[in-house]
Amino acid sequence: MSGIAYLGPPGSYSEIAALVWGDATTPLLPRATMPAVVAAVETGAARHGVLPIENVLEGGVTTTLDLLIHETALRISGETVVPIRHVLVARAGTQLPHVQVLYGHPQSLGQCRHFIERVLPGVATVASLSNSTAPVEALADARSAAAISTERAAELAGATIIARDIQDRADNVTRFIRLSHVDHPPTGDDKTSLCFGFSERDRPGILVDTLQEFSGVGLNITRLESRPSKDVLGGYIFLVDLNGHRDDPPVAAALERVRRRVGLLKVFGSYPCWHATDLHANAGGTAAAGTP
Amino acid sequence: MSGIAYLGPPGSYSEIAALVWGDATTPLLPRATMPAVVAAVETGAARHGVLPIENVLEGGVTTTLDLLIHETALRISGETVVPIRHVLVARAGTQLPHVQVLYGHPQSLGQCRHFIERVLPGVATVASLSNSTAPVEALADARSAAAISTERAAELAGATIIARDIQDRADNVTRFIRLSHVDHPPTGDDKTSLCFGFSERDRPGILVDTLQEFSGVGLNITRLESRPSKDVLGGYIFLVDLNGHRDDPPVAAALERVRRRVGLLKVFGSYPCWHATDLHANAGGTAAAGTP
Repeated sequence: MSGIAYLGPPGSYSEIAALVWGDATTPLLPRATMPAVVAAVETGAARHGVLPIENVLEGGVTTTLDLLIHETALRISGETVVPIRHVLVARAGTQLPHVQVLYGHPQSLGQCRHFIERVLPGVATVASLSNSTAPVEALADARSAAAISTERAAELAGATIIARDIQDRADNVTRFIRLSHVDHPPTGDDKTSLCFGFSERDRPGILVDTLQEFSGVGLNITRLESRPSKDVLGGYIFLVDLNGHRDDPPVAAALERVRRRVGLLKVFGSYPCWHATDLHANAGGTAAAGTP
Repeated sequence: MSGIAYLGPPGSYSEIAALVWGDATTPLLPRATMPAVVAAVETGAARHGVLPIENVLEGGVTTTLDLLIHETALRISGETVVPIRHVLVARAGTQLPHVQVLYGHPQSLGQCRHFIERVLPGVATVASLSNSTAPVEALADARSAAAISTERAAELAGATIIARDIQDRADNVTRFIRLSHVDHPPTGDDKTSLCFGFSERDRPGILVDTLQEFSGVGLNITRLESRPSKDVLGGYIFLVDLNGHRDDPPVAAALERVRRRVGLLKVFGSYPCWHATDLHANAGGTAAAGTP
């Protein structure tokens, strides 16, 4: 009951995020799906679970958001941000100009399009299921093959890195949350995540009035996202992040006022804010110099 | 320049939506991707383009939202809602108890899970690229094969329908928009879609103050969604639908006030509201009785 479950396989960006909260003695437990990560914590197989929640280019990870809204009573106890940094790998001795085939997850292939066009023009690309399986497939290919992967997955596969930071955008990052049975005690620099929805529909102004309960007392809403309520088209659940801990008196009072307005209020938890200066902790053993 | 481009292939739910705006003489032009639908209208190959924008269970179609925000100056000139109604098809004479393999788009297989467990327990499933290719693949399979598809795609493939309305949720619907060079003149029962974003970050209350410009004068916000601004984590573009036409004086005045507050304001267009009573027009030749 001390391990950290994460969205596997080993070498994934979720594992890099999980390493932020573990040390050398923490069992890291890969799971094949996001619901399985949640179940690992709920059943006690793991103490914490790590899931991606938001990518700067793609937006919210809807499976994670829907698990929080509809499926689990676990709390968010922390957040961290991991830079998405792709490497090009191959077997030792591979010459770039001779590469015939390139393996990669479709999203990763898309994120490295400029590099591929410039350095590997006309190469055949093959879709892999993950950044971790791509180097394994490249090493098994009889042709001169390369793969897009992460530094850690390349290491696990025993592949040689022949180019680093090949992604088009240097500022591509993904935010991860840690789920636990309890959230985090106040630290003085915290964030609270919650969702709410309305039982009556279409009363003009009710959404704005509800948000006003926070902003009107100076609580800063740092994120506002909506998901379908899944009962009727045009019915939404709103997800809000705001600065402050749910135990801070102004936050607690605002939550109480909101609770009286809405049909549904679920507080996902309060936890320390992540700051860009924390980034050195997130590189999973690699130097993060040069990324924001 | 009179045709309607849609997200193909023929038999897709987008084609069913496109049929709402066409008649027997309107060329329907399938395109392979959402950007290609937009390009068909921009270049004049089609007069209108039809894209899915929101599903009641899955939420916003992020590719469509990002095209509206970042890529195109086309306007939304209409909306329609199509019920997602799956049929089970096979070659003529196939007996349900003998079916060995089931083809379907992964999302469609998921949406029919209860039916599959009840009627085809233990059947092998194969992922198809679309609801339109699934019946073609089933007919080509030498085994006793079935497919999940739409009524129209089954007809196009020459497959026999052996069960109807096999989706778990009777109320699963997708909303589609029509894109054109100009939006729609006022009808007295209209909706306006827009997005805005802020150039300064984190000023407490600015989002709520901006929404208040609409709700404070009685304009009803029927939808609020956010997308990443793609420049910095925590930077968002907000998409709003509200009742009223952009030429209505209260809407025009509110837009003018909002324009002075925000760094970015883009009005996607004004168009007639879709109502559930319009649903009979959307069944693409099938009776829609029993769906909301």
